[in-house]
Amino acid sequence: MADLVGNLLVGQSGGPTAVINASVAGVLQEAGRHECIEEIYGGLNGILGILNEELIDINEEKAKSIEGLKYTPAAALGTCRYKIDFKKNAEKAAKDMDRLFEVFTAHNIRFFFYAGGNDSQDTSHKIHEEAVKRAYALRVIGVPKTIDNDLPHTDSCPGYGSVIKYCSATVMEVGLDVGSMATDDGSCCIIEVMGRSAGWIAAGTVLAKQGNPANPPHIILLPELPFDEEKFLAKVRVTVTAYKYCIVVVGEGLKNAAGEEIGADKTRLDAFGHPVLSGAAEKLAEIIQGKIDLKTRTVKLGYAQRAAAHFASATDAKNAAACGEAAVRAAVDGQSGFMVKIIRSVQASGAIAWGTGLQSLADIANVEHFIPKDWISEDGFLPNEKFVEYAAPLVEGEVKVPMEGGLPKFVQLEKVRVEKKLAPRA
Amino acid sequence: MADLVGNLLVGQSGGPTAVINASVAGVLQEAGRHECIEEIYGGLNGILGILNEELIDINEEKAKSIEGLKYTPAAALGTCRYKIDFKKNAEKAAKDMDRLFEVFTAHNIRFFFYAGGNDSQDTSHKIHEEAVKRAYALRVIGVPKTIDNDLPHTDSCPGYGSVIKYCSATVMEVGLDVGSMATDDGSCCIIEVMGRSAGWIAAGTVLAKQGNPANPPHIILLPELPFDEEKFLAKVRVTVTAYKYCIVVVGEGLKNAAGEEIGADKTRLDAFGHPVLSGAAEKLAEIIQGKIDLKTRTVKLGYAQRAAAHFASATDAKNAAACGEAAVRAAVDGQSGFMVKIIRSVQASGAIAWGTGLQSLADIANVEHFIPKDWISEDGFLPNEKFVEYAAPLVEGEVKVPMEGGLPKFVQLEKVRVEKKLAPRA
Repeated sequence: MADLVGNLLVGQSGGPTAVINASVAGVLQEAGRHECIEEIYGGLNGILGILNEELIDINEEKAKSIEGLKYTPAAALGTCRYKIDFKKNAEKAAKDMDRLFEVFTAHNIRFFFYAGGNDSQDTSHKIHEEAVKRAYALRVIGVPKTIDNDLPHTDSCPGYGSVIKYCSATVMEVGLDVGSMATDDGSCCIIEVMGRSAGWIAAGTVLAKQGNPANPPHIILLPELPFDEEKFLAKVRVTVTAYKYCIVVVGEGLKNAAGEEIGADKTRLDAFGHPVLSGAAEKLAEIIQGKIDLKTRTVKLGYAQRAAAHFASATDAKNAAACGEAAVRAAVDGQSGFMVKIIRSVQASGAIAWGTGLQSLADIANVEHFIPKDWISEDGFLPNEKFVEYAAPLVEGEVKVPMEGGLPKFVQLEKVRVEKKLAPRA
Repeated sequence: MADLVGNLLVGQSGGPTAVINASVAGVLQEAGRHECIEEIYGGLNGILGILNEELIDINEEKAKSIEGLKYTPAAALGTCRYKIDFKKNAEKAAKDMDRLFEVFTAHNIRFFFYAGGNDSQDTSHKIHEEAVKRAYALRVIGVPKTIDNDLPHTDSCPGYGSVIKYCSATVMEVGLDVGSMATDDGSCCIIEVMGRSAGWIAAGTVLAKQGNPANPPHIILLPELPFDEEKFLAKVRVTVTAYKYCIVVVGEGLKNAAGEEIGADKTRLDAFGHPVLSGAAEKLAEIIQGKIDLKTRTVKLGYAQRAAAHFASATDAKNAAACGEAAVRAAVDGQSGFMVKIIRSVQASGAIAWGTGLQSLADIANVEHFIPKDWISEDGFLPNEKFVEYAAPLVEGEVKVPMEGGLPKFVQLEKVRVEKKLAPRA
């Protein structure tokens, strides 16, 4: 097995992060160290581009561009949300799989790496199984990536440390701002963060407190716990009485007891029938202003939080690159059907050492990893010190982004196309 | 005049910025260099706290805390929106003025510095005039501060360079993110920035383009120009056709042709009769999704943008501190009734030298400074190279914020209160 020789293909999938390119850089730089890897290709826009035979030749890229990926946010190869979905449409999925192996065969792809979250690991798993079934010699290794931090078996997901570093700093800064305007009237600010139905990002902003109960955020609303309006308003009141202001962090996927997202107003549909999304923060502001007449402002960080390379975590970026490197080493060593996972070990000195390991993709796909219940305070409004102990090391260190004229100088790949060998996809 | 001896009082007013504390640091550090200045006091929460005789003794603060104000966002002394308003309520204003001079007299305040925007300069102007009228020896100098950049006669306002540096970097990062997800379906992201009815902040994000038309932002909606839905949707369509994605920056105060803010939905009132504010970005997303069925996401930076000390402009922070220092020097030199203004001069080498000057407060108060019309493109959707030439130097250089455990280490003042000498305010 270990003497497989051929070309490498790497792709990115799902929502980008500040460090997903660092994982790709890790793959590409490690790939250059192994003679069994001949050509190194990138797939544009993940599986979607690969199905269309849209490959680029990484050997045409400058070494310094590859190194620059370590501080460049978003998906340098492009990404997609395309899924080879056997459950929803088995016929189309089977056709996609045939096409994928045509592309692999045409370009002698023998090493395949896919950086992504749950869905992408599922895709990698299916590709691995398909290769086995077809007796097509292929090494498939998944590279973890998601700001949502909801992949199982890994200590954490590359992208998560950076997003909570940025969001925590934002909470500190907004907290100082709102706190400095705090007069007897009181005021409130709601900061909405991403994470879909997982509260990992919202919870991570507890780091902004730096152990002081008076510091913001004063309330964190986790989507895992049903929103209780009365309890929430009571907590806002108590906070404003104590500190004259209240900073609330809310995970975008916050739901009411009926399981409905509070930011989606189903009573208002647009011309195409989409529900009008006000967002969780706007909805909470409406509730606070409408029910207790407290001046309330909102911040919705949106994509800014997952793309904030200018304030990324060096620990996160290093782990992201290490996952890419480990993926290539595993494949060269003959492994396939695994995802790289991050392993932390606490040393005698208390310092943390970061390493990587492998976990079968069968254990990863479609399993969500939630915040342990005993990491959350009794009233449900704040994560506790167990959570802080987990999260704090993830934000350590700063990624150094080169600056030009006061703005970040990110890299862009040349993206020289590999000549197509197949007829266009039907 | 020049031999006036007494105590100094400095206060902050209006919405905070990333560098308003740098101005206070400038005042405090310069004050320490002049023997005619005896005690150095800070007024808590601006005029509001001063009326309540809430003063702190700056000599109780550590020198390193004062230095640390140069990288600490928000108003370290606290701020307020309180206005001594002779127009709205002459009787109350006269009473406030009496009280203010009681406080000044009780604490022998002879040097008064107030950092703020339009309203605050108006307050300083009135205090100066009142001192003349009462023959109370007082030197009043206004220190400019506003992210909105709408004070006249100054090259720019401290706070503005930092906010557009942060917002431009955010546009670059979000642009890479959305661009990397761009597939044939197309997508759009609306980024809402502050600035009230002035478009300076929105316009400033043009720096993210770095001279490349393909780079975001693709459309900037300035509140100065009435929103034209059809023209806007056409421009979004053209942009998505060309680049597969479209990044729009909108100033929060965007209005329709009837002069109504598009983010304020007057048809929906809460229990207290407040209109429900969706915000300009949400409203635009509703329009785009409802009219052309294009996937659209929003980012509302809110207070995060004006508090983002972690990515502040060194040029801005230096100018802010210089304004504070110049204010003290002017007062010690016998001047009163002026605002410090920033002056740029372009040297033979092309390099920019920053200096300060004085402008009568009578010329400042209640005058708004708008973007020159010939700095905006013909179609109104982007500022042109004249604007870029103006704005680019303002974002240069990075403020170095000390970090601890991966998060900014901001300073907090001790705030040792000065003993009150008066009966509580009636």
